[in-house]
Amino acid sequence: MTIGDGILHPDRLLPAEPGTRSIARDLYSAVRDLPIISPHGHTDPAWFASDAAFSDAASLLIVPDHYLLRMLHAQGISYDALGVPRRDGAEVAAPRAVWRSFAQQYPLFTGTPSALWIDHALSAVLGCEERLTPDNADALFDQINAALARPDFRPRALLDRFRVEVIATTEGALDPLTHHAALAHDGWGSRVRTTYRPDAVTDPDAPDFRTDMARLAALTDCDTARWDGMIEAHRRRRAHFRAHGATATDHGHPSAMTADLPATECQRLLTGALAGTLTPAEAECFRAQMLTEMAGLSAEDGMVMQIHAGSRRNTDAAMFSARGANMGADIPRRTDWVGGLDALLNRHGHAPRLRVIAFTLDETTYARELAPMAGYWPALMIGPPWWFHDSPAGMRRYLDQVVETAGFANLAGFNDDTRALLSIPARHDVWRRAVAGFLARMVAAHQLGRTSAETIATDLSYHAAKRAYRL
Amino acid sequence: MTIGDGILHPDRLLPAEPGTRSIARDLYSAVRDLPIISPHGHTDPAWFASDAAFSDAASLLIVPDHYLLRMLHAQGISYDALGVPRRDGAEVAAPRAVWRSFAQQYPLFTGTPSALWIDHALSAVLGCEERLTPDNADALFDQINAALARPDFRPRALLDRFRVEVIATTEGALDPLTHHAALAHDGWGSRVRTTYRPDAVTDPDAPDFRTDMARLAALTDCDTARWDGMIEAHRRRRAHFRAHGATATDHGHPSAMTADLPATECQRLLTGALAGTLTPAEAECFRAQMLTEMAGLSAEDGMVMQIHAGSRRNTDAAMFSARGANMGADIPRRTDWVGGLDALLNRHGHAPRLRVIAFTLDETTYARELAPMAGYWPALMIGPPWWFHDSPAGMRRYLDQVVETAGFANLAGFNDDTRALLSIPARHDVWRRAVAGFLARMVAAHQLGRTSAETIATDLSYHAAKRAYRL
Amino acid sequence: MTIGDGILHPDRLLPAEPGTRSIARDLYSAVRDLPIISPHGHTDPAWFASDAAFSDAASLLIVPDHYLLRMLHAQGISYDALGVPRRDGAEVAAPRAVWRSFAQQYPLFTGTPSALWIDHALSAVLGCEERLTPDNADALFDQINAALARPDFRPRALLDRFRVEVIATTEGALDPLTHHAALAHDGWGSRVRTTYRPDAVTDPDAPDFRTDMARLAALTDCDTARWDGMIEAHRRRRAHFRAHGATATDHGHPSAMTADLPATECQRLLTGALAGTLTPAEAECFRAQMLTEMAGLSAEDGMVMQIHAGSRRNTDAAMFSARGANMGADIPRRTDWVGGLDALLNRHGHAPRLRVIAFTLDETTYARELAPMAGYWPALMIGPPWWFHDSPAGMRRYLDQVVETAGFANLAGFNDDTRALLSIPARHDVWRRAVAGFLARMVAAHQLGRTSAETIATDLSYHAAKRAYRL
Repeated sequence: MTIGDGILHPDRLLPAEPGTRSIARDLYSAVRDLPIISPHGHTDPAWFASDAAFSDAASLLIVPDHYLLRMLHAQGISYDALGVPRRDGAEVAAPRAVWRSFAQQYPLFTGTPSALWIDHALSAVLGCEERLTPDNADALFDQINAALARPDFRPRALLDRFRVEVIATTEGALDPLTHHAALAHDGWGSRVRTTYRPDAVTDPDAPDFRTDMARLAALTDCDTARWDGMIEAHRRRRAHFRAHGATATDHGHPSAMTADLPATECQRLLTGALAGTLTPAEAECFRAQMLTEMAGLSAEDGMVMQIHAGSRRNTDAAMFSARGANMGADIPRRTDWVGGLDALLNRHGHAPRLRVIAFTLDETTYARELAPMAGYWPALMIGPPWWFHDSPAGMRRYLDQVVETAGFANLAGFNDDTRALLSIPARHDVWRRAVAGFLARMVAAHQLGRTSAETIATDLSYHAAKRAYRL
Repeated sequence: MTIGDGILHPDRLLPAEPGTRSIARDLYSAVRDLPIISPHGHTDPAWFASDAAFSDAASLLIVPDHYLLRMLHAQGISYDALGVPRRDGAEVAAPRAVWRSFAQQYPLFTGTPSALWIDHALSAVLGCEERLTPDNADALFDQINAALARPDFRPRALLDRFRVEVIATTEGALDPLTHHAALAHDGWGSRVRTTYRPDAVTDPDAPDFRTDMARLAALTDCDTARWDGMIEAHRRRRAHFRAHGATATDHGHPSAMTADLPATECQRLLTGALAGTLTPAEAECFRAQMLTEMAGLSAEDGMVMQIHAGSRRNTDAAMFSARGANMGADIPRRTDWVGGLDALLNRHGHAPRLRVIAFTLDETTYARELAPMAGYWPALMIGPPWWFHDSPAGMRRYLDQVVETAGFANLAGFNDDTRALLSIPARHDVWRRAVAGFLARMVAAHQLGRTSAETIATDLSYHAAKRAYRL
Repeated sequence: MTIGDGILHPDRLLPAEPGTRSIARDLYSAVRDLPIISPHGHTDPAWFASDAAFSDAASLLIVPDHYLLRMLHAQGISYDALGVPRRDGAEVAAPRAVWRSFAQQYPLFTGTPSALWIDHALSAVLGCEERLTPDNADALFDQINAALARPDFRPRALLDRFRVEVIATTEGALDPLTHHAALAHDGWGSRVRTTYRPDAVTDPDAPDFRTDMARLAALTDCDTARWDGMIEAHRRRRAHFRAHGATATDHGHPSAMTADLPATECQRLLTGALAGTLTPAEAECFRAQMLTEMAGLSAEDGMVMQIHAGSRRNTDAAMFSARGANMGADIPRRTDWVGGLDALLNRHGHAPRLRVIAFTLDETTYARELAPMAGYWPALMIGPPWWFHDSPAGMRRYLDQVVETAGFANLAGFNDDTRALLSIPARHDVWRRAVAGFLARMVAAHQLGRTSAETIATDLSYHAAKRAYRL
């Protein structure tokens, strides 16, 4: 089944100039219905393992979506009113009230990618025939909830309907992967995969670092107080993750800094990290060294290494303390890729099996650093526009700034990086439209023939991600 | 009376693609004649208080405009030839000679916003029917001077003619505000307002810091050598400014750094500042702490806090020594908003009455820092493109980079920030055209309906500034 | 003879909107056939001095072009297979095999400026009637080699055919300039000029710094162990270069840092540099001081000073050790122009004969730093988009970000900066198309009249470079 357009205009996001739009339409129609490869994201594997119905529109669409929460918060809507759980367990608004608040404030999202995703989810996925307004909020809430109770809105049915060929979730190094084991048991193991995300045990500033290192030791039967033992523990966990479908690792670091330190210095940092005595600069060195170690393991085992660098997390201390992480207060910062990856690339950059995919929130590094680097190093690819830049203008700036220097072959295609299951088709659709528009402009400027453009559009919409993630 | 177009093309600055231009024309025509809200700028309150005629075209249009002076200087025209006063009192060129030099070099401004403003002022405001050339320079000089002598070119008449509903000037913390008192006496108090700009007493590197702190003490009857006394002095001056119409404060800082230091450390810095013994790093801490203190006072008294950060002032030491500040040698620098505002926002970012409007000269922070921050913190809004970026392409980049992440509701509308009275209608007109073009492109791409676009255009042209500045 | 378009579309790179394209076509046709001024580049003066035939297509077009090599390397093609000489002298692929490898991988360059240059060179210069493919690779190789053997493909004939009025090569401070002497003898002295590039003796980190300083002493009869003597040695070498046609110097520095140190500190740094005892920070100070000294000499002798700052060279240590420099692993980094040039400009920025042309790889500095600085300082101009940014989108971003603040008069026109002789007409053609497109958009937006646009297009395509380099 094709995701219909409903209240969405079929030409949305395509270039306005009629000749260019016509080319873009042709390119888009060639890629619109391709299967979805979603090699990086944050959906909950329990959804797919249990295949239980979602409870209601607000809990599915609003409460877990920090893109929405933040904008409402900026206008003074409290997270209590948005139903966001509190650490102190105090009551927060019920789903219908949350939905009403959101409907009331929905015009805030005009011009943002959130509006594209919500409009698409409501219209193309959930079958709503009107845009959300305060007046139809209750009716749509009931209509959506009724739909969600139906078998064709169960998580696995949605993956079918969205034509998701592969989706990867992201789990911490200590995760038991029971959901993925259940999925494998049901024959879904190669369709819903995991990703190895060891930040909790590679970052000495992580809240439970010491405990988690002890758990890592217990899980792997390795001495994680010794550098070599700790690396061996990762080696074993990575193998465990691969056995559950993982083809990639993921590393969310505040900076892109890497290091290549002598063994004694590594041990000194580890000992300090376990004792809780590292200075902030030493903690940064520890993380930096761990990225290089992870690259070394990827060179061994062929897991694709994703580096998501440059977010300052939890910048609102009061919010973090009241409700925890992912509340919309993570803010990008300047990132030095050329200095940062120097140690890693000089150590492992020529290893034939290594593949690093770099994601940045600092757009100034597209043309200045990442495109020149990816256009040189065999091991390095550029990930798609990430987070705030997963948007029409963000994609336009990305393509404008990376393609001339990195070419198309050093790009990792698209991934949606989302927690919001229902936004997946919308996000891939926005990317496919952005790619069609970009290529159409090149065709209109006679930089590219139509046949090449269609090949590239298909590649960037489907094959590139599959190839990049070794799927 | 409508400001006519004269030699200006009615479609100027609108998108070229005919379908998009037609939408943009409609949007522009809906906002073109709205009143002007000018909540931040540097016009001279004495003009409006005395309502005296301006002397001549060169003294009004050229000599005080550092946008013009700098470009002429870059081509080797001396500031003597441009009539810019010298500290040593030596003679400089007379107005007619200045005007001739400018006319000779006017093609230098092709493609710059200065040309848009000058063409608009000459044509739409002053009624000239030809662009300025060396050949018509004398005739236009005489024609303009004759116009300026007429009652309908007096400052207050110009405000009427420009449909300026509110204009704010900017005064130092020690200013007696006599012009604003006179304006209030004449019933102009809510139309011409002041703004509290305390940089001279918040920056230990300000030239007369010690003297000015003593004057602040004398004016407020507070002990400005004690931290609490010094803060209390600000509290009283702010109240005094509010009594003269101020709804906002303004802070021009070299960086966006803020701090939240313990009381003893504050006192130590103040004592050092008064003794003139602070290191550059300590002076930066002092300024950083003062921004946080000012935010605390804004949280109390509701004055809107403007932060203009990131200009390296007076980079030409010889020029500064010969003629003083604002000579065109202030150059933007990299600015760290996410690290910079961290202390202020964590201390006061949830205060219900606090509103901070951030202005940047570092465009790389639009999408990377300011839009994510303003899209989260209730207290924070993004000011319009500032200074060098108050231009067609500057506005295009601004809207392209802030809207998707901050939405429209976290933008503070437009302000002209000008010393050049006659450029005010031109600057607002450029903004309205830029907004119309931006929204028309979204409408053409089916991201937005025409009705929403018109609502947003009206808001960004008029209501947003009023609301943001609590006018 | 006009360079024909062959397989290239005559409207390539022009704006798609028909009205704008028509204006752009007119502007482009006015500048298309203007002579070429190539005031900065890296062609080999031996070519023009000896005027010998080029050997074959691969050795001319592929092996020396790091733009091509890097992209092939990123896809895992080894430099051995690309015929790149090794320091250990081991054999590498022969030209025909190199050409075949390149043909196989040519689609990698789709969307990159390299494809524009290669298509142009093959089609418009070498008369190939098809785009390069694996199938026609051998035939084109033979066809090109046959052409290169003909008299009209000798280096001097190519300069005639390309309408190159002046071309500057770049030589180290110790170069004997024998090729330029030979050229002068043949009456080609004012057409093929040299450029003074003293990096080997201004950078204490240069590999043979001490030896080269001794050679500099020997060549000039100056005591290069004394600061004044070392400066005098430069003064004499610069005079020698001027006698061989040089009008400019060139300085490739990792940062834009300059300094203005007291004489004793200068001497201390020089002594340390010769002793090999400088810390990295001191070496940076030495380079910084040398830029200011070079500006002082330019203020004396009128040589135009080019600063190419912000490339981190040879970031792949293994590659550098195996094959040397210019292997595609030089990566741009963040550059601080406003802080960096402060010392130089405050020391020499008002000197009437000084002209500094700044080239950046950090596009964030266009609007934030370089345009404001060049729009103020009489001594400073902005060089054209450099290296990775010498591309259609790179030029669009450059013009978009510099013109409004710097105007057109503070731009240094275009230069191709190339080692690839056959790419020269293509690169200037891309620039002329980019300029025509940019100006056409301004005309279509009524920011500029057609006559002004044509004057500016002609200036940026020809006169500006001549004027900027004092040719």
